[in-house]
Amino acid sequence: MTAPNRNVLWAHALVDELAAAGVDAVCITPGSRSTPLTEAFADHDDVHVFSHLDERSSAFFALGRARRTGEVTPLVCTSGTAAANFHPAVIEASQSRVPLLVLTADRPPELRDSGANQTIDQEKLYGDAVRWYKDVAEPEATPRKLRSLRTTAARALAKATGTPAGPVHLNLPFKKPLEPVEVEGDVPADLPELAASGREEAFVSTTEGVPELDDDTLRDLADRLSEPRGLVVAGPADAPGVEREALAAFAHATGFPILADPLSGARFGGHVRVAPVIGGYDGFLDPSVTEPWPDPDVVFRVGASPTSKPLRKYLARVDAEQLVVDPAAGWREAEFTATDLVVADPSRLMGRLSRLLAGPGSPEWRRRWEDADATHESAVADAVDAAESEAFEGRVLADIFELAPDPATVFVSNSMPVRDADRFAAPSTKSLTVLGNRGASGIDGIVSTALGAGSATTDDLTLVTGDIAYYHDMNGLLAIGRADVDATVVVLNNDGGGIFHMLPIEKFDPPFTSQFKTPHGLDFEPSADLYGLSFARVDAEDRDGFREAYEAATASEGSHVIEVTSDAEASHGVREEIRERVVGELRE
Amino acid sequence: MTAPNRNVLWAHALVDELAAAGVDAVCITPGSRSTPLTEAFADHDDVHVFSHLDERSSAFFALGRARRTGEVTPLVCTSGTAAANFHPAVIEASQSRVPLLVLTADRPPELRDSGANQTIDQEKLYGDAVRWYKDVAEPEATPRKLRSLRTTAARALAKATGTPAGPVHLNLPFKKPLEPVEVEGDVPADLPELAASGREEAFVSTTEGVPELDDDTLRDLADRLSEPRGLVVAGPADAPGVEREALAAFAHATGFPILADPLSGARFGGHVRVAPVIGGYDGFLDPSVTEPWPDPDVVFRVGASPTSKPLRKYLARVDAEQLVVDPAAGWREAEFTATDLVVADPSRLMGRLSRLLAGPGSPEWRRRWEDADATHESAVADAVDAAESEAFEGRVLADIFELAPDPATVFVSNSMPVRDADRFAAPSTKSLTVLGNRGASGIDGIVSTALGAGSATTDDLTLVTGDIAYYHDMNGLLAIGRADVDATVVVLNNDGGGIFHMLPIEKFDPPFTSQFKTPHGLDFEPSADLYGLSFARVDAEDRDGFREAYEAATASEGSHVIEVTSDAEASHGVREEIRERVVGELRE
Repeated sequence: MTAPNRNVLWAHALVDELAAAGVDAVCITPGSRSTPLTEAFADHDDVHVFSHLDERSSAFFALGRARRTGEVTPLVCTSGTAAANFHPAVIEASQSRVPLLVLTADRPPELRDSGANQTIDQEKLYGDAVRWYKDVAEPEATPRKLRSLRTTAARALAKATGTPAGPVHLNLPFKKPLEPVEVEGDVPADLPELAASGREEAFVSTTEGVPELDDDTLRDLADRLSEPRGLVVAGPADAPGVEREALAAFAHATGFPILADPLSGARFGGHVRVAPVIGGYDGFLDPSVTEPWPDPDVVFRVGASPTSKPLRKYLARVDAEQLVVDPAAGWREAEFTATDLVVADPSRLMGRLSRLLAGPGSPEWRRRWEDADATHESAVADAVDAAESEAFEGRVLADIFELAPDPATVFVSNSMPVRDADRFAAPSTKSLTVLGNRGASGIDGIVSTALGAGSATTDDLTLVTGDIAYYHDMNGLLAIGRADVDATVVVLNNDGGGIFHMLPIEKFDPPFTSQFKTPHGLDFEPSADLYGLSFARVDAEDRDGFREAYEAATASEGSHVIEVTSDAEASHGVREEIRERVVGELRE
Repeated sequence: MTAPNRNVLWAHALVDELAAAGVDAVCITPGSRSTPLTEAFADHDDVHVFSHLDERSSAFFALGRARRTGEVTPLVCTSGTAAANFHPAVIEASQSRVPLLVLTADRPPELRDSGANQTIDQEKLYGDAVRWYKDVAEPEATPRKLRSLRTTAARALAKATGTPAGPVHLNLPFKKPLEPVEVEGDVPADLPELAASGREEAFVSTTEGVPELDDDTLRDLADRLSEPRGLVVAGPADAPGVEREALAAFAHATGFPILADPLSGARFGGHVRVAPVIGGYDGFLDPSVTEPWPDPDVVFRVGASPTSKPLRKYLARVDAEQLVVDPAAGWREAEFTATDLVVADPSRLMGRLSRLLAGPGSPEWRRRWEDADATHESAVADAVDAAESEAFEGRVLADIFELAPDPATVFVSNSMPVRDADRFAAPSTKSLTVLGNRGASGIDGIVSTALGAGSATTDDLTLVTGDIAYYHDMNGLLAIGRADVDATVVVLNNDGGGIFHMLPIEKFDPPFTSQFKTPHGLDFEPSADLYGLSFARVDAEDRDGFREAYEAATASEGSHVIEVTSDAEASHGVREEIRERVVGELRE
């Protein structure tokens, strides 16, 4: 490689290494200090550049892409508060174990804490939220420095995609000139080829194993699982998700029902045909229902803590051996009910266990769960059909999961959509990839995360969001045009924070309406106009209207915003009614 | 005070202390974990609640208010990434020395790093960017704990408004119940009055002095300033700004020209009638102009590093004693030209020095600067009048500063507006408070910071921003209705990052257009529709059209967006022409 100056050489070497290791896209926000990085990425034939203007949205877009693929989409920003705008997405990536490589340009050391313009303390900016931080050396065209840079690229990717996956932050100082102008003598003509151009493949190849139990331990574990009554609890999955084949084999071998979080990767897919996947636990796991039930003997837990509070409370009150399987030994289980931590890759472990297990457990136990689930599903179906006159948000979720194309990626926002998906999206054999930001469960960056996920797949993309989360990241909609991602965005607009109707604060008004519900009165049609998106507004009471609008949107090209005006209080009432009916029937 | 549970008691005690110390407003974003804080603030008669929905905007709003007033407007958010969205504003507050009190609700310790929902590591979340961090104790209705809380409130405010002022972060864990429900026995009936209700005034009153030199040192300093040729360089001021009377007295006593940054608080005001305030240095300080000039003997610098690069470069090439006056000993001077650091309060120091100084320095020296400034001003005036057919952004800034009501608060965005204000806004006797986010010079949070500043004053408020900064914080516009702040928002829309035309990367396309200029093609009318604001679009070529629209907007009630379509490249051309003419004339 020949380069006009050391910065160009340096940035191209970094980008070359990332591309050689498989990086095929990058999210960049414009800035001056990051010019060498931006130029090098833009110049690379194998890397697609997603150009964003708001760093917060850019970071969530990269997160969404990585969540969908399990691979790194690096992020580039200039020096200053730009980097701090990445912070929310970095935290979400850390907590939901999504690989993220943050490349922040910085001033050279002598200009830090000097009063220089657009200069902040970027060192360890994200604290403990990153798997690795490195203040990279200043560019220099010497063999050792270039080897160190190429090695740093490999290490950064290995850390980001390791166990657990997560964000890595490289802080990269650059001195002027930042542009590809010729600087006489800056790059020696006799620079060794290896330093200048690296190896034909990546400079360092990374091969990383996953935690695996030895055969004796595995047999012991299989023995402990050979009980009549067991449960598999599949919480939100680490990217890119659990292997459905392994799960199906494990369910077949154990005969245990699978309580599948909507974000577990286990609720939808071909395996549902053969495995006892339960989706309605959030609706029927009431103490009065389960009180006469025998406790499970053993609970096999994979993934993060389930979205469902009734499920978490159930797991906290049963007397069972609870095995939390976590490849990163960092279990996520805030009810503190685990009896065993099993540090192993869940898919591989289930696959190996399946071959050792004695045979399916109690059919009666399994049937109990299937019956409860059927009761829930039928109550939901009745309510969804009957509630023609109700502005019921749960029905919108149920309809979306029913009508979504096959295959599709469905992104559900935090706050109510993920909870309604949990309760009202019945397991199905459709190939749906359901994603959410459940690491830190923020309502920030939702639009961008969904679009980032959509950018990585030819699947149809649906985003279901509430109005506050939609408002929070309206800037993210810019990516629809700029990144050429098509999406159907369903905004459940109940004019404020509907979730607060579920909390005791509802009874204290003031401050309930002004400080919690916070009605904003926004009509979102102009937001679609701003970004050139088609827009439809449907009242949640008008079921057919919504179904038609949704089917038309998914069937046509381009991106669509469907604003569904709903009523949080009424929806909460219907949720309660359904739950009461199910619990009542099961109690009998 | 009687309280139904310990959380209510705790939060009310905290809010009572803040209010007793003078806090009269708070910015709150809705959330569950922060319920006790929100309820307590909302319940307090003397505290106005600004309710925001996007934490990033909320934080910048609080920053803007504090920048305008010099006083704390606390910020409240729930647990999780909400707090990370504050990070950019926290950094700006730290670097521009604006008091900020961040109150983040958190889960109790046992739920941290446990997999609990919406729980992140909030400890020291903002790293070294805060003046003080405290993980506050869990609420408990005991005398010692309550005394510690009341004391913590006082300490937090003292730290935030100390020298230098800046952000303080209190992390406040709460266990359920979060609502004001009765919890039997949670608050003992016999809790001593002092613990329960505090003192009549603030529990702890803070009295803080400012650094002041002793008399001998002061006399020495006065001797060193008794030189014929001196300069006062007033950089961007720490909130709430330098005292204009002290500055005028100092200029009178020394006879030194004052090179007044637009953000210094010294360019506009009654003192301009009597003090030699120079505003055109950014246009005329060219090496070819100043080469035959004698160097100054002494430079007296207050405030942060000036916005003007030509000024900074001038200060770096002259051989002069350069005294950086900084009350916090944290000087901001990235050209490393200071010969003396003087740790003292600038206003007090100038006032005291004025009484000791021998008399004004060289009138010839002063006239040299005034003449150069006049040459610049006349060239600007000609260009502004002549450039009828040019979409020249500098003229928009010049017109705004000419036409802004008196008094007014004018907020200028980073990137080009602050630079154009620096070069094209002539000093005047109008009472203009000119503000910008020059601590970290980000383009984030601009709309919110401006509105926050506007919320603290009955002044007319104008915001001048580029299109990217406007887009970045469009969410901030929601505060216009919710916080009842009126503003005239002038958006210089040159469809992308106009500033990059000033950088060498312009010559490299690709990647210039796609990655730096980044045209977005947005028409901002829908953004005004979304928030119910009046909207006008004017071409920058149409000078009369803009002046009429601006005058109409400032003269009428309500908030207005004026989109001025401009041309970054043409504007840059005119800037260069003016500069060349000025430099040419002065060289002769």
